[in-house]
Amino acid sequence: MRRVYLDYAATTPMHPQVVDAMHSFYSEHYGNPSSLHSMGQQAKDAVEKARVQVAKALSADPAEIIFTSGGTESDNAAIKGVAYSLQDKGNHIITSRIEHHAVLETCRFLKKQGFEITYLEVDKYGLVEPDDVKRAITNKTILVTIMHANNEIGTIEPIEEIGEICKNKGVYLHTDAVQSFGSLDTDVNKLGVNLLSISAHKFYGPKGVGVLYIRKGTRILPLFHGGGQENHKRPSTHNVPGIVGLGKAVQLAVAEREERVRRYTELRDRIIGIFEGMEHTWLNGHPEKRLPNNCHVIVEYIEGESMLLKLDSVGIEVATGSACSSSSLEPSHVLLSIGISREDSHGSLRLTVGRLTTEQDIDYVAEQLPQVIEELRKMSPMGKNRNT
Amino acid sequence: MRRVYLDYAATTPMHPQVVDAMHSFYSEHYGNPSSLHSMGQQAKDAVEKARVQVAKALSADPAEIIFTSGGTESDNAAIKGVAYSLQDKGNHIITSRIEHHAVLETCRFLKKQGFEITYLEVDKYGLVEPDDVKRAITNKTILVTIMHANNEIGTIEPIEEIGEICKNKGVYLHTDAVQSFGSLDTDVNKLGVNLLSISAHKFYGPKGVGVLYIRKGTRILPLFHGGGQENHKRPSTHNVPGIVGLGKAVQLAVAEREERVRRYTELRDRIIGIFEGMEHTWLNGHPEKRLPNNCHVIVEYIEGESMLLKLDSVGIEVATGSACSSSSLEPSHVLLSIGISREDSHGSLRLTVGRLTTEQDIDYVAEQLPQVIEELRKMSPMGKNRNT
Repeated sequence: MRRVYLDYAATTPMHPQVVDAMHSFYSEHYGNPSSLHSMGQQAKDAVEKARVQVAKALSADPAEIIFTSGGTESDNAAIKGVAYSLQDKGNHIITSRIEHHAVLETCRFLKKQGFEITYLEVDKYGLVEPDDVKRAITNKTILVTIMHANNEIGTIEPIEEIGEICKNKGVYLHTDAVQSFGSLDTDVNKLGVNLLSISAHKFYGPKGVGVLYIRKGTRILPLFHGGGQENHKRPSTHNVPGIVGLGKAVQLAVAEREERVRRYTELRDRIIGIFEGMEHTWLNGHPEKRLPNNCHVIVEYIEGESMLLKLDSVGIEVATGSACSSSSLEPSHVLLSIGISREDSHGSLRLTVGRLTTEQDIDYVAEQLPQVIEELRKMSPMGKNRNT
Repeated sequence: MRRVYLDYAATTPMHPQVVDAMHSFYSEHYGNPSSLHSMGQQAKDAVEKARVQVAKALSADPAEIIFTSGGTESDNAAIKGVAYSLQDKGNHIITSRIEHHAVLETCRFLKKQGFEITYLEVDKYGLVEPDDVKRAITNKTILVTIMHANNEIGTIEPIEEIGEICKNKGVYLHTDAVQSFGSLDTDVNKLGVNLLSISAHKFYGPKGVGVLYIRKGTRILPLFHGGGQENHKRPSTHNVPGIVGLGKAVQLAVAEREERVRRYTELRDRIIGIFEGMEHTWLNGHPEKRLPNNCHVIVEYIEGESMLLKLDSVGIEVATGSACSSSSLEPSHVLLSIGISREDSHGSLRLTVGRLTTEQDIDYVAEQLPQVIEELRKMSPMGKNRNT
């Protein structure tokens, strides 16, 4: 049976060049970059080379890049780091209702610690209104954290405009760019951010490694305490192979971005086309301001999980909601926030294409998907009730 | 030129079987364990298999194992997690003066947050006296954190006895077993610990992955907030290859422990023998209660860093102090705590053997080392002053 992976937003296969780049650091150049001998210094050179690769991709200075264990750590480090560092200045943080759980749960934790959190509403496409950010800022505001692009519905937020507002008001801006890096321009100066999170496994790099960009001069306390690594901002022995792989994946993402985006868009639009012909089915997220690889739909009267499992049984791998909350039975906070009913939210399906997706894959989906949906609708008590 | 790596306490080369075990999870079985489709569930199975491997090695239950990014994260998560969780009960934490920076700096941070820290003194071998722990416990004490074995001088602490005391007093005990795992018995029930940290790259596993053991019923808040992974105790996409590699490395460490310890001890004792013949040179740490692979000496009148670089130039890679504080010019807190003068502390040298160390390597060290020391002593102004 053909297998078609359409869950690139959850994670991606490592690029062969990334696998190759990492290999010699396992058992050959295995030094600890903190060691002063040759083996250590070779490892340090490799880490610093990756830092330059990342800095270039973000138009940042290498000294502004710290390596983390991934997006969740970067988000936690950014938000808690600023909160604890600036608690003498203020205790107010602004975010949106549709952020990743790594941001929302961090804010929820900080609320218990005495911080005040404003959750901005979004419109039906999931867009944050920059004027809402402006209005929400008080003299107690220390941080605005708004994602670059949403991980479920793919909507791209107006970070440049929000960046301008934050700059004028003298408030730090953090953006979770975990889903956007590799697809969108993540020049930190154009975006106007003080802090930005990325995660290697979302763009064909290894799992377990990410980046937090920290603009020079940004006051932030570390999330980890320990040795002197990363200039005391993120102690722990460097994950040398992971960092090398991240650097390579960043380099490839930049070099291939235009071509990847062109292909993703074509394939994604073909998937959207499959759903357009169906009844009781609609696309979520913004029609244009969306990630080039994301298709997110509601299929009425069917459970997303049933669709997922049925599709999996014919070799098509998709998501309902995000991977990070897949064990939860709660409806997606993102979908509720854009005005979708609890009932309809259960019929969500996310299909995300990637480097290895082919035209033939989409042909196969076009052939299988309508059938799967039809079969499930026949069995669905919700469907029957509605249709009678 | 022969290269002899004698810095296994800083990091180790990955075991070939570990490298092999990880490989298929890069670009083939690359799923996100949180995804419900086949690709995700295969990845989940691999993570759960590793969890069982780790649990077995610690005589723990798989539900008591969480995967982290390494020793520093595990230590931070354990100490901050208990501190924040039990702050209603008390604010007192007991540790020792010779802990790893990941413990000491975390305690220093918590002190600023209003916690009280007691730093226990150690004897000239670096041993914590269990009676001191007993005396230090008050009705405000929420946690005792004492390392299993010291990373610089190799001294093994009496964790079982301390565990007994903590159990009787109803106080949580955490131990940093980063240096001991693979060499010592780390049965969590024998040790009597509630929390235990390990790091894969110290025993031929990958960098960037570790474990925090959390005994069932232990009250602890997470260090990361985000998705539902690791039962909400450690959100973030699982580092599947890293976790698989960790599991394999744990399995090998247990299977080969007896043989490794026998070989390490033999080789280590030969290194100690080289120094025994030298003037103005002495061994640090306990003569018997020490890690089987650790030799730590003071060579009077010479800078450790000069020895390190000179030895590196003839292909011998060693450490002075620990890797994690190698960028610091401060004398080692461990050496000062065991009563070594600031001056002498600068002449420290740590040689740690491992799986790939051979008899011939030690022959080479025996040949080169006395010469290097003699040359440096001739050049040393400290040496000249003392000798006149």
